[in-house]
Amino acid sequence: MDLLYQIDLIGALVFAISGAMTAADHKIDIFGAAFTGFVTAIGGGSLRDIFLNTRPVWVDDGNYLLAILIGVIIAITTHRYLGKLRRTLFMFDALGISFFTIVGLQKSLAADSSEIAAIVLGMFSAVMGGVTRDTLMNETPLIFRREIYATACLSGAISFIVLSSFGMDDNLNAFLSASLIFIIRIISVRYKLSLPIIGG
Amino acid sequence: MDLLYQIDLIGALVFAISGAMTAADHKIDIFGAAFTGFVTAIGGGSLRDIFLNTRPVWVDDGNYLLAILIGVIIAITTHRYLGKLRRTLFMFDALGISFFTIVGLQKSLAADSSEIAAIVLGMFSAVMGGVTRDTLMNETPLIFRREIYATACLSGAISFIVLSSFGMDDNLNAFLSASLIFIIRIISVRYKLSLPIIGG
Amino acid sequence: MDLLYQIDLIGALVFAISGAMTAADHKIDIFGAAFTGFVTAIGGGSLRDIFLNTRPVWVDDGNYLLAILIGVIIAITTHRYLGKLRRTLFMFDALGISFFTIVGLQKSLAADSSEIAAIVLGMFSAVMGGVTRDTLMNETPLIFRREIYATACLSGAISFIVLSSFGMDDNLNAFLSASLIFIIRIISVRYKLSLPIIGG
Repeated sequence: MDLLYQIDLIGALVFAISGAMTAADHKIDIFGAAFTGFVTAIGGGSLRDIFLNTRPVWVDDGNYLLAILIGVIIAITTHRYLGKLRRTLFMFDALGISFFTIVGLQKSLAADSSEIAAIVLGMFSAVMGGVTRDTLMNETPLIFRREIYATACLSGAISFIVLSSFGMDDNLNAFLSASLIFIIRIISVRYKLSLPIIGG
Repeated sequence: MDLLYQIDLIGALVFAISGAMTAADHKIDIFGAAFTGFVTAIGGGSLRDIFLNTRPVWVDDGNYLLAILIGVIIAITTHRYLGKLRRTLFMFDALGISFFTIVGLQKSLAADSSEIAAIVLGMFSAVMGGVTRDTLMNETPLIFRREIYATACLSGAISFIVLSSFGMDDNLNAFLSASLIFIIRIISVRYKLSLPIIGG
Repeated sequence: MDLLYQIDLIGALVFAISGAMTAADHKIDIFGAAFTGFVTAIGGGSLRDIFLNTRPVWVDDGNYLLAILIGVIIAITTHRYLGKLRRTLFMFDALGISFFTIVGLQKSLAADSSEIAAIVLGMFSAVMGGVTRDTLMNETPLIFRREIYATACLSGAISFIVLSSFGMDDNLNAFLSASLIFIIRIISVRYKLSLPIIGG
């Protein structure tokens, strides 16, 4: 659990960097950058917790807001250099959504949601912070662009529920299902794969 | 109660079709269509439940997400034909908001809200799914267009509270107040009625 | 507490006027104006309460919705004259955010949030109603414009936590910290002060 907690804090920090970097691309002030970093980091998990009718973890545990603050400061002080690391940031994001989907799914099941709702809420945990970031910045949300993003999260979440129904060990299952998300995301961007359009 | 439950599921299915159809008009991919169908179907009721500090019903009862999934599949496979049924869809939508307003109002009262808050929350139950759909699709939300939509819901909700204070039977009251919403909606579109503009 | 309650109701009324006035600038109908007044008045406090997993006060206490209704009616009937009082409205808004930040922070601490989360939630209480209003009206949210607004709220909230850690009396602390917000807001607009831009 201690390791999971540390990964969760690092995830918040990385998402805060990504949010503040997006704000930097729009040349807004440092408060706006901090605000965008904050909503990117807490948006997905908070929405899941609100649907589960539980209190988001950052309200009680100050470490999350400190991690976000550090992420924002890193982004503000080093965004000129970070801008050249798009590839590294992309890998971090792919790792982040893989991890957050499975953790979000497990938290939902632990809060007695139905399995099908846990799949949706796991995906929400991973992608809704970015959706809020894009909406604030007036960009078309990533999940509506022609990329496989939320669908990768859904696939991994479904995989976790299916493997779990066969009695697979939770830790191995989490590792395999998160890896599936990561691999689908990397391959789909590498080979420019996309879903069919409706209404074409 | 069993009949109400079935109507509620059908309502979720119809709203999911309407959301996914709107997405089809914007030529987005099938995930985006499913996502839009989902938020259209659950948006209003979930917002009501969040304000009431209760857990949205779809988190616990998987049948709602199954109904939405069926609605999305219907929209994706038949949107070419459904497009010709705008008139039928309009009638379904008018029926849907009439039903959801009164059910939302009753759920709010059952959760001990004040009567004036129940009127607002009943209206929210009916219209906020569509508002979220329109915001995601970058359209001006229907409730801000020059049509009588949310105002019809408010009228029916106020009617329910007033008739209830005179001691009318709940079932008859629900039927009459929902009918009032339906009639106001149909008449206002038929005769192009609209509210006065402020700031004109 | 009675005085605080009355100030809170007046705050809701003033924010409702401000929301409905913004709607009037966009020439939308009276329902749209009322809706915008409502979300401006309840948006910030409701978001805080949702994060705290408590029920927003307006759901139980009908007086808030009545105060909002009165504010909307004032705005609709007198917006031609109110339009000339921009300076007065600006002062009311500055007073409103000062008050709501400190009250929101105190409510968060009373609901056992961490101190750093209470700072964020206090600021949210004050500014998120306006953010929702601007998003609905398709304007760039005030907090993203080149003005010191949310940062003033943050400064006052931090001041309250710091002075409180030195053992200062809560009432005196609330007065001093709210005054700090008000003064920063007034001075920054008077002298056109702004935060540095990231990504410039």
